[in-house]
Amino acid sequence: MTADEARRLAPRFVARATEYDRTGSFPVEDFADLRRSGLFGLMVPTRLGGMGAGFADYAAVAYELARGNGATALVFNMHASVTGALSGVTDELADALGLPPEALEARDSYLRAAAEGNWYAVAMSERGAGSRLSEMATRYERTADGFHIKGAKTFCSGAGHADAYLVAARSAADPSQVSQFLVPAGDGLSIEPTWDALGMRATGSHDVHVDVVVDETALLGGVEGLALVVAQLAPHWMVASYAAVYVGVARAAVDAAVEHVEARKLEHLPAVRARIGRADAAVAAAHLTVMEAARRVDEAPGDAETNRWVWRAKLVAGTTAADVAASMLEAAGTSAMRRGHPLERLYRDARAGSLQPATSDVCADWLGVAALGGDPDSQGTAPRW
Amino acid sequence: MTADEARRLAPRFVARATEYDRTGSFPVEDFADLRRSGLFGLMVPTRLGGMGAGFADYAAVAYELARGNGATALVFNMHASVTGALSGVTDELADALGLPPEALEARDSYLRAAAEGNWYAVAMSERGAGSRLSEMATRYERTADGFHIKGAKTFCSGAGHADAYLVAARSAADPSQVSQFLVPAGDGLSIEPTWDALGMRATGSHDVHVDVVVDETALLGGVEGLALVVAQLAPHWMVASYAAVYVGVARAAVDAAVEHVEARKLEHLPAVRARIGRADAAVAAAHLTVMEAARRVDEAPGDAETNRWVWRAKLVAGTTAADVAASMLEAAGTSAMRRGHPLERLYRDARAGSLQPATSDVCADWLGVAALGGDPDSQGTAPRW
Amino acid sequence: MTADEARRLAPRFVARATEYDRTGSFPVEDFADLRRSGLFGLMVPTRLGGMGAGFADYAAVAYELARGNGATALVFNMHASVTGALSGVTDELADALGLPPEALEARDSYLRAAAEGNWYAVAMSERGAGSRLSEMATRYERTADGFHIKGAKTFCSGAGHADAYLVAARSAADPSQVSQFLVPAGDGLSIEPTWDALGMRATGSHDVHVDVVVDETALLGGVEGLALVVAQLAPHWMVASYAAVYVGVARAAVDAAVEHVEARKLEHLPAVRARIGRADAAVAAAHLTVMEAARRVDEAPGDAETNRWVWRAKLVAGTTAADVAASMLEAAGTSAMRRGHPLERLYRDARAGSLQPATSDVCADWLGVAALGGDPDSQGTAPRW
Amino acid sequence: MTADEARRLAPRFVARATEYDRTGSFPVEDFADLRRSGLFGLMVPTRLGGMGAGFADYAAVAYELARGNGATALVFNMHASVTGALSGVTDELADALGLPPEALEARDSYLRAAAEGNWYAVAMSERGAGSRLSEMATRYERTADGFHIKGAKTFCSGAGHADAYLVAARSAADPSQVSQFLVPAGDGLSIEPTWDALGMRATGSHDVHVDVVVDETALLGGVEGLALVVAQLAPHWMVASYAAVYVGVARAAVDAAVEHVEARKLEHLPAVRARIGRADAAVAAAHLTVMEAARRVDEAPGDAETNRWVWRAKLVAGTTAADVAASMLEAAGTSAMRRGHPLERLYRDARAGSLQPATSDVCADWLGVAALGGDPDSQGTAPRW
Repeated sequence: MTADEARRLAPRFVARATEYDRTGSFPVEDFADLRRSGLFGLMVPTRLGGMGAGFADYAAVAYELARGNGATALVFNMHASVTGALSGVTDELADALGLPPEALEARDSYLRAAAEGNWYAVAMSERGAGSRLSEMATRYERTADGFHIKGAKTFCSGAGHADAYLVAARSAADPSQVSQFLVPAGDGLSIEPTWDALGMRATGSHDVHVDVVVDETALLGGVEGLALVVAQLAPHWMVASYAAVYVGVARAAVDAAVEHVEARKLEHLPAVRARIGRADAAVAAAHLTVMEAARRVDEAPGDAETNRWVWRAKLVAGTTAADVAASMLEAAGTSAMRRGHPLERLYRDARAGSLQPATSDVCADWLGVAALGGDPDSQGTAPRW
Repeated sequence: MTADEARRLAPRFVARATEYDRTGSFPVEDFADLRRSGLFGLMVPTRLGGMGAGFADYAAVAYELARGNGATALVFNMHASVTGALSGVTDELADALGLPPEALEARDSYLRAAAEGNWYAVAMSERGAGSRLSEMATRYERTADGFHIKGAKTFCSGAGHADAYLVAARSAADPSQVSQFLVPAGDGLSIEPTWDALGMRATGSHDVHVDVVVDETALLGGVEGLALVVAQLAPHWMVASYAAVYVGVARAAVDAAVEHVEARKLEHLPAVRARIGRADAAVAAAHLTVMEAARRVDEAPGDAETNRWVWRAKLVAGTTAADVAASMLEAAGTSAMRRGHPLERLYRDARAGSLQPATSDVCADWLGVAALGGDPDSQGTAPRW
Repeated sequence: MTADEARRLAPRFVARATEYDRTGSFPVEDFADLRRSGLFGLMVPTRLGGMGAGFADYAAVAYELARGNGATALVFNMHASVTGALSGVTDELADALGLPPEALEARDSYLRAAAEGNWYAVAMSERGAGSRLSEMATRYERTADGFHIKGAKTFCSGAGHADAYLVAARSAADPSQVSQFLVPAGDGLSIEPTWDALGMRATGSHDVHVDVVVDETALLGGVEGLALVVAQLAPHWMVASYAAVYVGVARAAVDAAVEHVEARKLEHLPAVRARIGRADAAVAAAHLTVMEAARRVDEAPGDAETNRWVWRAKLVAGTTAADVAASMLEAAGTSAMRRGHPLERLYRDARAGSLQPATSDVCADWLGVAALGGDPDSQGTAPRW
Repeated sequence: MTADEARRLAPRFVARATEYDRTGSFPVEDFADLRRSGLFGLMVPTRLGGMGAGFADYAAVAYELARGNGATALVFNMHASVTGALSGVTDELADALGLPPEALEARDSYLRAAAEGNWYAVAMSERGAGSRLSEMATRYERTADGFHIKGAKTFCSGAGHADAYLVAARSAADPSQVSQFLVPAGDGLSIEPTWDALGMRATGSHDVHVDVVVDETALLGGVEGLALVVAQLAPHWMVASYAAVYVGVARAAVDAAVEHVEARKLEHLPAVRARIGRADAAVAAAHLTVMEAARRVDEAPGDAETNRWVWRAKLVAGTTAADVAASMLEAAGTSAMRRGHPLERLYRDARAGSLQPATSDVCADWLGVAALGGDPDSQGTAPRW
């Protein structure tokens, strides 16, 4: 099982996590391990040399990786999102969308490369627009034999380390069209090292300045204007794929607290036991919620009921991670606040869960609207993507 | 599926719930529905005319019944516990325990009667002892051809309505032996109507005074002193079987709030949407936790890891039910506080979950002990059962 | 000190609270005690025979009364609101508002009667309009020598027992004018016994049907259209005067839990101690918040900063009461769920705090708006009063 | 008023806080400001050139300083503890304790030096013992004309910057005697830079190795074995003096969130308003609790009821700070997670409150014991100091 492989790697990630966190540097060795393990091919169909995993498999892997290092798992999540979304464009769907044959060839080529050890980052967010595709300021223009893309991206996890980047941009000719490109690492992309954050410090989510010319095959789907369609087909990759990571972080916090309490012989304190007991139950419930959402994504991706599970997973995972990490630090006591103590890092990492889009407050609103028979997609004035 | 049958009955229960709650009277009509539906045979093996359900099937049924009326579901839970535990004494287990053949005949006879429409209550708890078998004050003595049982029981749900009662008692000859008897309704059992509680008012959990002579077949297992063995084999029936009921109550609260908010056209209030959204996610997570625990009970009953899931389920269900019902009442507003409004009842019913043994605080402690590598069974001075 | 007198009465209220709650009947004997104690004159200036208390004195009294019986304290709160608001119309203010001399005579007459043992209820809320003056449907018309008032009121605490009722109504001639009348008990007011609620059952907050002719002196202020002015001058009586009651209820819950735990000898349970300790601190903090708001109301009534304290008091008191009562019931265990146990009642009574207007959710929003430099009064579309 | 002076300094502290936090270096400039302001003499009687402040004055100052920089306020707190405790040894008390005249001279000399710009740190905690005086491993021996003190201290805020250090040590000759010395900065104290923590990074709470000879005047009180007596006389300096700091941190978090939300124009988001509104009320309630405890410390230091308020203040301040900072970060969104953003630091700083002794869990237990009529001092096996 793919999750077993991830579980095997996690202790190595744990051993390195403190240092990557301290320096805020990219987990190069973790990614070397991932490459060797073949997990870059996790979402790649077996016919292209991959593991042919579904979303539930992914969630199980992400949870285990995050028990090792949440930041590593978050960057991996981006790669999984790209390869997962590409794999989701089946031949049938391609046919239905009227995609040209070259697009399928490009898709296969990107996926095959992933199975062989390439990995992809996502350069989607922009200052101001966040990750809303409809507000992207990055522009592209057709050239003789490809596209010229220009703009600035932010929060690009793994920037400077990926083999290629998924870049969303708007057509200069027809601003209503937002397209996605897979841009190879190289001269046209320059990294501005802006990432220096409270938690998840090792994701290297720096700014990326894009001024690059790519050939036709870089246009995902081979047809312009597909970005919004894909976002609506696969909201789980934009909302819920983080969720498994944060449950893994929460479980790591419980584990670290248990280890700390045992080492300090504090088991006799009832308040400590109660904190750990309640945290254990909360993490277990959140884990089930994420796995159920993932299962449903595999069964009926994009369905209204699936999306509700996706939002539930995001909401429960984010709130649980922050609450659990805070309580575990309180269970462990002041000595766990020293930098270098796993709980010190996990407390910071865990806080990010609720804030990553869709935030906990947004998920709560969407769930409320849906429970009340409304459609969150048509709610309010701001477009969701 | 058995849960479908329960789902079919729930709306009828809803329609009657207010009145049973108001008067604190036993839900006679709900039980007539249950009898007709065949659900008394839920836990009875098919070879004896029953539905042959497992614990997970039971949990699904209990959840649906509780969406109708939590009190009805709680009484049903007691019957399911008795029949479930009886069914759990398989021929193999009976052999291993050295049970006499007559005990198996009696077992089959009780189970067949259940499939035919009899239902059983549990007269276990005593004032002071709670439900701890090791502290039972009710005594029994051997007579020429049976037993004479004498004592007082409390919190006996369905008292005065069941066809027979599971009575735990201690041997007068050898106080170390605690046995369980199935005592038919009749003269030796007198009901003292003491039940008048905040919530779950329709369970009729009155006191029962026992002064009765029963024949040999009433001794469950046919051998004295088995009560503790059974409790340890099947802790799920003593701890977790309530859990599904309280998740059903919590879901009913969300449903009632949605109905109320829609009727009053309050959907535009962001605070109301946020409350409903968060409640929806919390109930979904609790539901999954209960179902996972139930699944594991079927797979590996009594295992250490199964027991942890059982405690998680009880803890999460109890806390979620109380929190969700309180928040839903706040979402609905003062008009939902009128007696007769579903949320008014559900708020009271939901509070009982954390307090039923094992309480939330106890489950948290056990989970903490287990996470810290300890054994909750050997913890502290008080015996658990 | 007036609070001492209230503290003296509280144990008597406690002794009667269970029965008034059970039957949902008005606390006649508590009110006889209040009359004898002179507390009906609490807010009446000393020159008119009263105690000349300020808002902080009132809050201290309300807290103590509520430790006895929250319902009694809530009804008393209505009387205090009427007499407090009347006393707040000083001669200077009357002059500034251009009130006629007869209005001041009427004011003094009503206040003197209160000091002599009369008490007043409030018939403000209407179905649909809530307590928003701007949406009142009750109408009045001028007659030869007075007014004819006609309409239906709801949530009138103490209905059928008060000596007179403050009735808000809209002018039939000029619907923009909302006026308040003090209508003597009698034929023109008929009580419809609709109050049958989860908590605060003894307030007798029934519906009142008004079809009555009153003389000129009944018009408070002697000038039509003053209702909104008064509401804006004294928002504390419409928002915060409940707050002290709910802190008293919360403290009563802690006291009842302590008594229960001591009687059952459960002090050795760490989870019980932790619950009581946290509840004790929360109630203490809420109490201070209410008293600070009250102090500021006396110093600078209606000021922006005073109003923020009023909302803080309402929010903190309401949420604390509900949380504390729920936790105390959990600390005490199942036996405290029996009807007749103080905690059973207090759990229900406490829930009402957050729901009474302004609700906790509304207070949170107003406080957020104010913190962000906005003016909650001009926020949104719905008028506040 | 002394708090005004602190309020005047706070904005300067804010401006420097990010950098001191980033580098984990001691806030040298803040302390220069404090020296110039005369606040080192805050707790020094006016007859010795100080400000003659009481505990409530201190709490008001600490709150304002912490709105600037919590770490600066925490170090200042240590100095205030030393000077406050010294000032608390009045001539009357000295007489009652039988202190020698030289001790009073030494006291006055230390206090006069503080008023003139010296400040004192506390070297109390030890690894393993925490701050429990009864378990100190640091030893002292009498020498010809003084004492030789030897041992290792941890968590010494301001280590390397103070003019003298309060060192607790146990008599080698009679281990039952624990004494306190004021040791001048210099050769006998060596700083091991161990402090590198999640939050409150600028306190420089490093380890201090003590191997020093001091003269007679260094022995506080002039009599050996007084440390425990003082601890019991002034528990507020060991428990509650942090509380004001953490409420200041919490208020700073609300202020920072308001500033962030206004700058980003997010006021229209209801979830943001609700978070800020609830946080504002919680901080206000916590602030009142701390000020009430401080007021009572001035009125009746060491009384049982005063101590309860001290524990309440510590509990409410610690939990409020952590909860509020977490929620404010969630209100502000991902951009506030960047290092250098005030909320990023405040989230880390705020977490320390509940963990500093007495921890929130310990305070809750003590409060529970006290509410149940017990005496927390005689509770359990572990000595409190």
